[in-house]
Amino acid sequence: MKARDNHTMLFDFYELTMGNGYFQTPMKDKVCYFDVFFRDVPDGGGFAIAAGLEQAVEYIQNLRFDDEDVAYLRSKGCFQEEFLRYLKTFRFTGDLWAVPEGTPIFPGEPILTVRAKAIEAQFVETFLLLTLNHQSLIATKTNRIVRSAQGRPVSEFGSRRAQGPDAAILGARAAYLAGASGTACAMADQIYGAPATGTMAHSWVQMFPDEYTAFETYCKLYPHSATLLVDTYNVLKSGVPNAIRAFKTVLEPLGIKNCGIRIDSGDLTYLSRKARKMLDEAGLTECRIVASNSLDEYIIRDLIQQGAQLDAFGVGERLITSKSQPVFGGVYKLVAIEEDGQVVPKIKVSENPAKITTPHFKKLYRLFTPDGMAFADYITVHDEVVEGPLELFDPVDTWKRQTIRDYTAVPLLQPIFQGGELVYPLPTLEQIRDYRARQVDTLWEEVKRFENPHNYYVDLSPKLWQIKHDLLSAQGHR
Amino acid sequence: MKARDNHTMLFDFYELTMGNGYFQTPMKDKVCYFDVFFRDVPDGGGFAIAAGLEQAVEYIQNLRFDDEDVAYLRSKGCFQEEFLRYLKTFRFTGDLWAVPEGTPIFPGEPILTVRAKAIEAQFVETFLLLTLNHQSLIATKTNRIVRSAQGRPVSEFGSRRAQGPDAAILGARAAYLAGASGTACAMADQIYGAPATGTMAHSWVQMFPDEYTAFETYCKLYPHSATLLVDTYNVLKSGVPNAIRAFKTVLEPLGIKNCGIRIDSGDLTYLSRKARKMLDEAGLTECRIVASNSLDEYIIRDLIQQGAQLDAFGVGERLITSKSQPVFGGVYKLVAIEEDGQVVPKIKVSENPAKITTPHFKKLYRLFTPDGMAFADYITVHDEVVEGPLELFDPVDTWKRQTIRDYTAVPLLQPIFQGGELVYPLPTLEQIRDYRARQVDTLWEEVKRFENPHNYYVDLSPKLWQIKHDLLSAQGHR
Repeated sequence: MKARDNHTMLFDFYELTMGNGYFQTPMKDKVCYFDVFFRDVPDGGGFAIAAGLEQAVEYIQNLRFDDEDVAYLRSKGCFQEEFLRYLKTFRFTGDLWAVPEGTPIFPGEPILTVRAKAIEAQFVETFLLLTLNHQSLIATKTNRIVRSAQGRPVSEFGSRRAQGPDAAILGARAAYLAGASGTACAMADQIYGAPATGTMAHSWVQMFPDEYTAFETYCKLYPHSATLLVDTYNVLKSGVPNAIRAFKTVLEPLGIKNCGIRIDSGDLTYLSRKARKMLDEAGLTECRIVASNSLDEYIIRDLIQQGAQLDAFGVGERLITSKSQPVFGGVYKLVAIEEDGQVVPKIKVSENPAKITTPHFKKLYRLFTPDGMAFADYITVHDEVVEGPLELFDPVDTWKRQTIRDYTAVPLLQPIFQGGELVYPLPTLEQIRDYRARQVDTLWEEVKRFENPHNYYVDLSPKLWQIKHDLLSAQGHR
Repeated sequence: MKARDNHTMLFDFYELTMGNGYFQTPMKDKVCYFDVFFRDVPDGGGFAIAAGLEQAVEYIQNLRFDDEDVAYLRSKGCFQEEFLRYLKTFRFTGDLWAVPEGTPIFPGEPILTVRAKAIEAQFVETFLLLTLNHQSLIATKTNRIVRSAQGRPVSEFGSRRAQGPDAAILGARAAYLAGASGTACAMADQIYGAPATGTMAHSWVQMFPDEYTAFETYCKLYPHSATLLVDTYNVLKSGVPNAIRAFKTVLEPLGIKNCGIRIDSGDLTYLSRKARKMLDEAGLTECRIVASNSLDEYIIRDLIQQGAQLDAFGVGERLITSKSQPVFGGVYKLVAIEEDGQVVPKIKVSENPAKITTPHFKKLYRLFTPDGMAFADYITVHDEVVEGPLELFDPVDTWKRQTIRDYTAVPLLQPIFQGGELVYPLPTLEQIRDYRARQVDTLWEEVKRFENPHNYYVDLSPKLWQIKHDLLSAQGHR
């Protein structure tokens, strides 16, 4: 039996009814190309953050049907025996390209491309979408929250409200790579190195005969990392005074100035300003004030604007579920097939123009100004070379044009698998986090703002635009 | 090394900083009581559906720290060696009661109670909340969607948009117990027996030279379960006519009438009515029409009201993430401790009256009318007996009173663990599904409606109300 975290069987059933169908037709060995892309940035933002690739790599490397799986599939009564035999040695033998985790990404551009035989390419659809959709969602949301805190640390606190165990663990991973300073989730620290921290719950305070004893005990146990939760009874009348007394009694004689309080309810602006004043008057100017309680990027921005005296934030359910928009709508679409060694582009038309796909096996470039700012993404057919003056034009309003000369074009899609072999050295989570920070720094403030961000350009090469246009015309679609 | 699906390490870090603290004080062996309850029904509904207990049981049975876990914890530099040694043999040795999965539940009532030594009771907080919050969320949402379909089957299609692998698999489990007819997720079928089905994606249609060939091939491969996706090009001009031709050509000669079409875009009311007419005129009166595409309970209700000719629904992201409200706010609160063998009630006050807990070790009863309808839940102190005439009163507006005589009181909290041993025979998923159906049938329509449902009564016994009132007064809180 496989380990339960082998996700070979995590597929939509139609992927194998189709696979069994391809197997019995000449489609079996047809090579095809699928793209993953998304259509809208969550929360109306200007960009998203790609994440989840490492789990896609693990998934593909671990793909195998064992005897139990085949027995289960046989019991469904719809698969040919020959197909079931084929599944016993089924592996992913194709090619895969993807943008590195931590890359800012934009609607309509390919963030992952699969080139493989029809059955293989179709089969991996569900898991690839699941991992990229989930972690890109949480990374994108976290990055918004972290930016709203303007340099103050934001810690991920949401495990108890996560949508299942993986959502807690992998959500904390995505949050950390996107800029969270740490997590409450020990398992995310143990597995991925997202630093776990934590101090006390209300129950700690309730367990002791009184609040002061609870605080004093905690300071004696953890003199170097005491953050006391001050809102179990009354923040200003009891919590902060008891905390001050415990700090003065236990920490001051030890010469320790590093300490903190956490406020988890009430009017955070008012309470934090009053608490700051009380702490300062007691000489505890280095005591940090941490806030939690249903925070998100808007509330944190408002708190700071209102002059709340807060040094750090703990964010739970609104981060770990991306509560305001809990779905990242990445899709997986056929864009080309090979016929006699030629790549033949395919298009999916739709009543809704926004749902029309960009056909063909493609390359994706990010164009940078000489001072290193990203100003457009540029999608070409796979065999084009990007060099010399480029004429950029709006793919809808094609009369909007500009010619650029002084730019650097950086290809974003990296080879991950070639012929089924991993060819990509997986970066560490810290490396992803650093890369993400550098890449977000290349975006203009106009792209990063929360309301009505600048619509970053994602342009097609003239050749690709023409192919798309010709295919649409050929469909005679209206 | 443990299997990755052992979730011992899935705790919030503060649970062990507190545990290490209790370990060094007389609190170590203090027995305490924690309740899980929730405050608001998602989507403004009248009730929720409890789910996720089976995973809580697995979690508790598998609780153990191995050498790697202890080494990780040691590396954090904040735990006593004696405490780390203690963790090596740490097990849950306490008692646990819970409402069975599939039970309709209401705000403010205990749906799970833990009685254990402080460290153990505190430690299990995160995982218990995580599993109950996640699966109760999805079960509650699914039950709304299923009820909106008025008997038509609803299938769960959301794996690719789920928040991580567990969210796909366990979400499909929760959806099935709550009334979904099946799932697209093969792994949920293999592990939990939630029946998986599926037919084709747009890519199947695109892979063939033309739509008709794709349909004809599929009907030949799967003559007994052909549901053809008709919106790849144009539903009424090409999809439905090609489907009719394939059914007539392939299925009619075989005498097969069981078939279907699926519409995944466009105006589902208009298209389904036109398609129904075309199918009927072709003699395919038994051909089902299945709809998908961003459905939820409101859209399904409206489609049916508008006369859409739909026989079944596939629901994806809005079910698997409970998109409109993706958080189930279950909390875990200390309600009592034992002192010298006596149960001493504890209360958590709050600036917000809705956040005040109901103290004490309690029992929960559901009161049924003689004809088997549920009319109130009734919470008592653990040592009370419910018999004879009961005076019910509103816990806030206490002048609202009624005396009931002819009722049946059914205890809802079942013993699950006693002294660390499982004493509860876990029901199968089918049994849970049946139980859920019977229990939802005991609720009045007024409780089940989507807008402004009747506020189902959750009352306290006079004794419990008095204890809560006295504790609040003693806190002198205002």
